[in-house]
Amino acid sequence: MRRWGVPEPRPTMKDVADHLGVSRQLVSLVLRDLPGASEETRRRVRAAAEELGYHPDDSARVLRGHRSRRLGVLFTMREPFEVDLVEELFAGAAERGYALVLGPLSAARSQRTVLAELLGQRIEGLLVLAAEGGSATIDDLPGIPLVQLGGPRALETADDVRVDDTAGIDLLVEHLAGLGHRAITHVSGGDGPNARERRLAYEAAMERRGLALDVVPAAFTEDAGARAAQDLLARKRLPSAILAANDRCAAGVLGTLVRAGVRVPADVSVAGFDDSSIARLPYTQMTTVRHDPARLAGAALDAIVRRIDDPDATTVRHLEPPLLIVRASTGPALAR
Amino acid sequence: MRRWGVPEPRPTMKDVADHLGVSRQLVSLVLRDLPGASEETRRRVRAAAEELGYHPDDSARVLRGHRSRRLGVLFTMREPFEVDLVEELFAGAAERGYALVLGPLSAARSQRTVLAELLGQRIEGLLVLAAEGGSATIDDLPGIPLVQLGGPRALETADDVRVDDTAGIDLLVEHLAGLGHRAITHVSGGDGPNARERRLAYEAAMERRGLALDVVPAAFTEDAGARAAQDLLARKRLPSAILAANDRCAAGVLGTLVRAGVRVPADVSVAGFDDSSIARLPYTQMTTVRHDPARLAGAALDAIVRRIDDPDATTVRHLEPPLLIVRASTGPALAR
Repeated sequence: MRRWGVPEPRPTMKDVADHLGVSRQLVSLVLRDLPGASEETRRRVRAAAEELGYHPDDSARVLRGHRSRRLGVLFTMREPFEVDLVEELFAGAAERGYALVLGPLSAARSQRTVLAELLGQRIEGLLVLAAEGGSATIDDLPGIPLVQLGGPRALETADDVRVDDTAGIDLLVEHLAGLGHRAITHVSGGDGPNARERRLAYEAAMERRGLALDVVPAAFTEDAGARAAQDLLARKRLPSAILAANDRCAAGVLGTLVRAGVRVPADVSVAGFDDSSIARLPYTQMTTVRHDPARLAGAALDAIVRRIDDPDATTVRHLEPPLLIVRASTGPALAR
Repeated sequence: MRRWGVPEPRPTMKDVADHLGVSRQLVSLVLRDLPGASEETRRRVRAAAEELGYHPDDSARVLRGHRSRRLGVLFTMREPFEVDLVEELFAGAAERGYALVLGPLSAARSQRTVLAELLGQRIEGLLVLAAEGGSATIDDLPGIPLVQLGGPRALETADDVRVDDTAGIDLLVEHLAGLGHRAITHVSGGDGPNARERRLAYEAAMERRGLALDVVPAAFTEDAGARAAQDLLARKRLPSAILAANDRCAAGVLGTLVRAGVRVPADVSVAGFDDSSIARLPYTQMTTVRHDPARLAGAALDAIVRRIDDPDATTVRHLEPPLLIVRASTGPALAR
């Protein structure tokens, strides 16, 4: 019986070979899926490797070859949509023969620290998400293939994969205006990445319809949305609809309004952006725009693999079209 | 000028040495902090390494020595309290000279897949969190030093670090009873890890006070809390207070009640468990019990380092005392 919690010598290919009474070379050949062994031998070797708990050593493989086939991911675990993306990246990377090395940023871990760790793991390329709290600056980023995935647009020369922010905001303003809303306030993402594009798109969409602009500066967090809602509650009159810069900000707005006794959507409609897991919660049911994380992850992986294979390839700009998701947080405007 | 997004040959110690006109051995000695070079030389070598963008190769270092000094972390990114713990683990691991390799579980990534990845990175020990969705079974876990940190108690023989669930529930029942609540419903964590301990503690604390038990089975998620709240709303009379199995479940309860027009805490008090980031949101302001993530992470790291240094050490059981955090989601019971 194996004893758990107690270290045992890690089984090697030689252990597998000895167990079967075959050569180490034969085991290596089978486990690397190379030709030269019968199906029956392959079956026996794999069964013995499984039985003995043999795991190939990634570090040794990396040094043996020139390729690590590892991709670094710079992101933050606090942003639900980034977690959605990372989960899709895992699936897509495996399909393309790559492994991911996660580099989560946090208040205590600077981009420089995280990048040094990732580079120490011999990543062949870097996917930069980190929409929130990311301080991606050109100086910090390493000279390796790099794709920006919805995060800060730090490098004009890097491949870039993101949702079409302008099209997404257009869909939301069209939806709200179609419900009869005229006083539509934008709770903005402030200095956050993509916040400026979303605010400009709101302004353009409102102006096209002859509607008055009302922007409350905030940020991409629940806290900022809650503070913005407090500011709106202090006004004489609430807007008819609120279009927040992202789902987290919208959740802060919605939660604060509801706790203050405002009915959503009977009194005020609230919409977000991202269709992250927050938007789908039963007590949020948020109207938002979806940018498909599987499609975005696939496009980013295609871009980084292409860039690794051909460093001189022309720069990719992938703008993913968003999809309007209507849920219960928006409804017809009150006749006033 | 460096071109970003274009791969360049990774600078080596030899490049640093050539740049300065010194030997590679001298550069290696300085960068490994070994004696034998003047302070001035050390300063020059470090400056040149920085200027050239030299990063030590972790894979090479791992193979050179017998130690990887890497710890694997099995967790889920969807659970805010686990993210809190992982951030503390990063800080504590660095202090102890270890690096973390993250192994996030998800619906698409089984424990077996994640463990194989972690083992491929030559981890010396494994920290198992994964309170939610973790299917930690004895068969899946590798024979390396292992510490359970608040997650499923899969292995009786492994070191175990967790909050004292019973003491935490006692604090909450005492708080609610002290506010005059007698009809206190427990929305349970169902089959989730630690859920049984929390339910039993609720039952014991209520029985000690001669209060009637009311358990609504749920799970450790917002969705499950929301469904439980719908069930409670369908009753003739709401309980006076609701003690949910964790903060996420409590957030589902609270959000659903508030959206149904129930005032929290004027009509019903709601409490959670964990003091995760959800509990601190401005529109949640949840009374809960805190188990300090920094203290838990420190205790888990101490345990794994001790286990790595001495595989035959006796098993550690660390029960962290919880702290009651009173926020605005609980208040005095209504006189009825």
